[in-house]
Amino acid sequence: MSEIERIGMAKRYSEAAIHHGVVYLAGQVPETTLSEGIEAQTAEVLLMIERLLAQCGSSKERLLRVQIFLADLADFDGMNKVWDAWVVPGHAPPRATVEAKLAKKAYRVEIVVTAAQA
Amino acid sequence: MSEIERIGMAKRYSEAAIHHGVVYLAGQVPETTLSEGIEAQTAEVLLMIERLLAQCGSSKERLLRVQIFLADLADFDGMNKVWDAWVVPGHAPPRATVEAKLAKKAYRVEIVVTAAQA
Amino acid sequence: MSEIERIGMAKRYSEAAIHHGVVYLAGQVPETTLSEGIEAQTAEVLLMIERLLAQCGSSKERLLRVQIFLADLADFDGMNKVWDAWVVPGHAPPRATVEAKLAKKAYRVEIVVTAAQA
Repeated sequence: MSEIERIGMAKRYSEAAIHHGVVYLAGQVPETTLSEGIEAQTAEVLLMIERLLAQCGSSKERLLRVQIFLADLADFDGMNKVWDAWVVPGHAPPRATVEAKLAKKAYRVEIVVTAAQA
Repeated sequence: MSEIERIGMAKRYSEAAIHHGVVYLAGQVPETTLSEGIEAQTAEVLLMIERLLAQCGSSKERLLRVQIFLADLADFDGMNKVWDAWVVPGHAPPRATVEAKLAKKAYRVEIVVTAAQA
Repeated sequence: MSEIERIGMAKRYSEAAIHHGVVYLAGQVPETTLSEGIEAQTAEVLLMIERLLAQCGSSKERLLRVQIFLADLADFDGMNKVWDAWVVPGHAPPRATVEAKLAKKAYRVEIVVTAAQA
């Protein structure tokens, strides 16, 4: 039976599953209520993703797909500003961005990442 | 050429594809019109997922990612109540939940599962 | 380190990543402003997908999952009409369709494809 490694396990969900060298992260949302603007929230979420990927033996150079949900598409440019500074030249992944209401009203962005282990 | 196994094939879509030990399920929605509440609908959808996973040689202990679409985020707690009772301790998967209008008005929940074969 | 091949690289994102024989496409949207109706837009998007899959050594017979976002679920039947003519009998993939506001107002459909290489 192929192994599944799980990271950040809680009762309801875990933060990551690793299987056959592929890392599946949970949808990441801002954890603090301090970051209200889209740029601060995007930066916070991308930092969380970077830390989780490191825990999983992956990195932002190894992204396979990124699904972005924005609570308001008016935040598209603000999100992209932070994204563009974060993404590694030559390693930008396939991406899809749509608008969707997120689990908490304070959330402006949720990002779901699939990546490859190093 | 690596094999793709397809389960529940119809003209428009199939219920599952299996490739390299990974199971990709179609978005599962309630099939009966009997279950109108979120708890009944979630239970029905999770049961369908469990049966499909079994057909694919997988199980709810082997979930790699779960994407949940709710027609109304007001159903978040009701969905979670059923989810929490269903998920296997120590095997809770990465999850993302957003609100989205679903294909039929009667649907309150749609769940898209990726899993590993046993 | 397992190889990731990237296709259609731009600064912000790329059109496809290939890893372990699995092809992850970016969300595909209509590129022209000529196709305003859902049928024309769906046909255009599916053609782009077909071309990208060919570049990745895959094809529409090798789809593993298709996530469809419609800006308006009223377009469901129109999208399906084009889809049904496009999908290869016996190779219809798992699919999920929800409504979501898309990055540009002119877009009626966005499709996110995962496929296997041949």
